[in-house]
Formats: sequence, C-alpha cells, structure tokens
Amino acid sequence: MAPPHDDKAAAAAEVNDESTAKRPISNVLFIIAMQTEASPLVNKFQLVEEPESVFPKGVPWVRYYGKYKDLNINIVCPGKDKILGVDSVGTVSASLLTYASIQALQPDLIINAGTAGGFKAKGASIGDVFLASDVAFHDRRIPIPVFDLYGVGSRQAFPTPNLAKELNLKVGKLSTGDSLDMCAQDEAAIVANDATVKDMEGAAVAYAADLLEVPAIFLKAVTDIIDGDKPTAEEFLQNLAAVAAALDLAATQVVDFINGKSCSEL
Amino acid sequence: MAPPHDDKAAAAAEVNDESTAKRPISNVLFIIAMQTEASPLVNKFQLVEEPESVFPKGVPWVRYYGKYKDLNINIVCPGKDKILGVDSVGTVSASLLTYASIQALQPDLIINAGTAGGFKAKGASIGDVFLASDVAFHDRRIPIPVFDLYGVGSRQAFPTPNLAKELNLKVGKLSTGDSLDMCAQDEAAIVANDATVKDMEGAAVAYAADLLEVPAIFLKAVTDIIDGDKPTAEEFLQNLAAVAAALDLAATQVVDFINGKSCSEL
Repeated sequence: MAPPHDDKAAAAAEVNDESTAKRPISNVLFIIAMQTEASPLVNKFQLVEEPESVFPKGVPWVRYYGKYKDLNINIVCPGKDKILGVDSVGTVSASLLTYASIQALQPDLIINAGTAGGFKAKGASIGDVFLASDVAFHDRRIPIPVFDLYGVGSRQAFPTPNLAKELNLKVGKLSTGDSLDMCAQDEAAIVANDATVKDMEGAAVAYAADLLEVPAIFLKAVTDIIDGDKPTAEEFLQNLAAVAAALDLAATQVVDFINGKSCSEL
Repeated sequence: MAPPHDDKAAAAAEVNDESTAKRPISNVLFIIAMQTEASPLVNKFQLVEEPESVFPKGVPWVRYYGKYKDLNINIVCPGKDKILGVDSVGTVSASLLTYASIQALQPDLIINAGTAGGFKAKGASIGDVFLASDVAFHDRRIPIPVFDLYGVGSRQAFPTPNLAKELNLKVGKLSTGDSLDMCAQDEAAIVANDATVKDMEGAAVAYAADLLEVPAIFLKAVTDIIDGDKPTAEEFLQNLAAVAAALDLAATQVVDFINGKSCSEL
C-alpha cells in the first residue's frame, strides 16, 4: 500500500480521520499481556478463541473475539513463549502484537489493559485502576541530544476526559520498562516521567498505535506498591488474581461507556 | 492463515524447511538501524529507494533494493522518528521493522548489521567487525522463575561456521539493550551473557526473525570500547563514520560469500 503523496490525498485522509472520530466506535481491541489478566474479560464479554488465526503461522499470539452490545470486541494476548511457556510480556512482543493486530483487525480504539506497579507517594493503592494520561519509557537512556527525547518516547494517551469523569477513574502518568524491578537509573527516569504507575508494555503499545494512527488508552490496575515495604515480585504474584478482578470491573465499565459513542465523545 | 496442527502438515513443513536450507539463497534482507550505517552499503550495492512503500502508510521505515550478483538485496532502516527526526534506534522499532519486512519481502536470510560497543577485556578493538554467535538482552530483569530466562531471551544466531572461517571474522556473543550507556545491573547482565559486543537492536531482530522462522545473522562493528577511558556517546559519535566503512567492507565480503550458496552451506 502506497502512502498518499499529493495534497488531495492528504486532505482526503484528514477528512476521513475527522469523520472516523465522529462515527460511533465499532471495533474495540484490547491488548493484554498476561493470560491471567485477560481471562476474566474474555469470560465477561463471552468471547471465543478464533479457530483460524489472523496472525502468521508460528507466532504464539492469541485472539478472542465476539460481539458485546453494539461493539465488536477483540482481546489479543502475546501468548506463551514458544520455548519457555511463560506469557510473552514486555515491550518487544507488545509492540509486535499491537502492530499485527491493527493490520489484521482495523480497530477504532485500542485499550491496553493490565496490571502495574504503583507509587503510594503519588496516590496509588493496591487495586486502584488508573487511566493513563501520558506514557513514556524509563529504561532507554541515550545521552545524545534529541536521541535522549526519542529514548524517553513520551506521548499523550488519546484524551478521554468524559470517560475519566463519568467513571471517576484515577488519572496518572504511566512509565514503561522491560524489567519488573527498577534500578536507580530507572527510578530517576520514572521520577522524571512524573509517573504514578509503572508497567512493562504501555509505551510500546502507544508507539505502535501511534505509528499506525490508532487512538489508544491505557487501563492499569495496581498489583504492588513500588515505594512500599514488600518485594515487588512477591507482592505482584500475591495480588495478581484479585487485582485482575478489579481491572475486569473497570474495563467492563469502560466498554459500557464506550458503547454507542464516537472517539471524540470519550 | 492457520498453523499446521496435524503431523502430516508438520512433516511437510519440515521437509519444506530442509529444501529451503539447501536451495541457493535468493533474497537477502539487511536490517540496519541508522542511516549513517546503511548509506555506504546502499551505495556499494547500487540500491535504490523504493518509490511505493511495501509498508503501511505513516511508518517512517525506509527500504532500498536492487540486484547484486545473483542476489536480491533489500536494506531496510527504521527511518527517522516522525516528530523528533532522529533514527528510530532500539528494540521496539527494530522488532517491528523485522516483522513487517519478513511479511512483505519473504527473505531467505536476515543480516542485522550495525555498530556496537565492544569490551577490550573480551578482545574487542575499535573497527573490529564481529559475527555474533549468540544474542541476548541485558535490560529485561524479571526475577520470577522462568520469566527471568524469558527476559534474557538468549538465542543462537543462525550457525555460519564456513562464513566465519573463510572471512576470518571475529566471533563473539552480542548483548542488546535500549540504552547507549549501561547501569550496574546492565553490566552484570552483560557479564552473565558473556558478551563481547553490546548493541541496541540485535536480540530484538533475533526475536522477531525467530517468531517467523527466518535465519538471522549479526554483523557488529565496534565504534567504542565500553571498558575503556572515553565516554561512550563521545567515542561512538567520533568513530561512527569510519567504523561504518569497516562494516561496509565486511558486509560486502559476507554478501560475496553468500552469493550462490544455500543457508546450510554458510
């Protein structure tokens, strides 16, 4: 597919974008890193796993789909690593899955939902579900002018002021890195990113969604308090199932709110 | 497209893989992160930039292609960040570009070529071109059993014993992370990875190539000595153009060697 090079085509594309923004949302794509996070939502929306993959042969990516109210809902997960059998978490597989899902499913809106660490100093508690206002990376340090900004890769989530207000969701900035823990340099970057929640996929989903110009929002449920007393891995595993239920509830409310609305009404 | 689930299909796929391995290589895909690294090779192989992109509208990815001896050569670069204008380095864009290029161009062999930092303690000097025997990540710490191994993501490069011997290339392990510098935790992981060279893309290219089962090799030219006296960013920028020429020479020799051979003869 060739990009439009002339002004007429560019103008047409812009008009098209505008009408897309005002058209009721039809296709919602959830991108969820872990099976444990996805399962309650798959059940809630009564989705089924597709028998024939829309993805290339050999990739572990899993897709569930179905109709809920007026919406076509897809939930995609990066699936189990082919050799190690664990969920394919992190930025590389999240970005690949986002890219391939956009190409295959043409969503109107992406919702990256999942668990996250939270900072109590910024107002986060276990079980809180945050809507991210901004996303950025905290483990891509490139100390060369302009490359440094590229590394941080800060970008705004698609603005959803009505959604945040109506559902009374906490709003905060999200910082993404490929480690479950954080080293001193990560921590300094997270502070510089002014983040309330920390995950392992958000900014990568945002990057891929932005490349292909699909609106993306981020729902992150807090499984562990990073600036607390307990070790992150232990607290994360202890709270994962319970917090997945909170995430499930919030995601359902978000989908109910979205139903019948256009992107510009969010 | 559905993956083959029955034994007959799996056997057919294996036979197919085997015949692919023995067929002369026809399509070679270079994945190169920076324009400065790519330009000498684009000129050497007299490649041209495609007027109509094989990639989706809006992505900054650039493709050069042409015929060199009996080979179709494609060089793809992640291109300039749409907002910041710098080369889109790092694992996320490298994995996306690898995935999309395999889908669009169906290469027989991927060569991820680029610059890298080297460890003099492991035998690296400025201007050396290494062929990576193995790749792994050094900035994906997930201290949960099995997830820890997934984070490191260690995998072998496609084995090319004849190539290494014939061209007398130095062989070493490659460690990949999204930072140009390294923090103490990165350094410990690089040591654990037994790495001689350090880059920002290799393991991500390997991951995407592995997902789609395309053989990948890694040519990394040393621009800076990590365990030396000079600051990495300064040394990298100083040596970038000169070392790109060394990389260019090695890459040409590799392509000359590949010409007329099958993957199993490398």
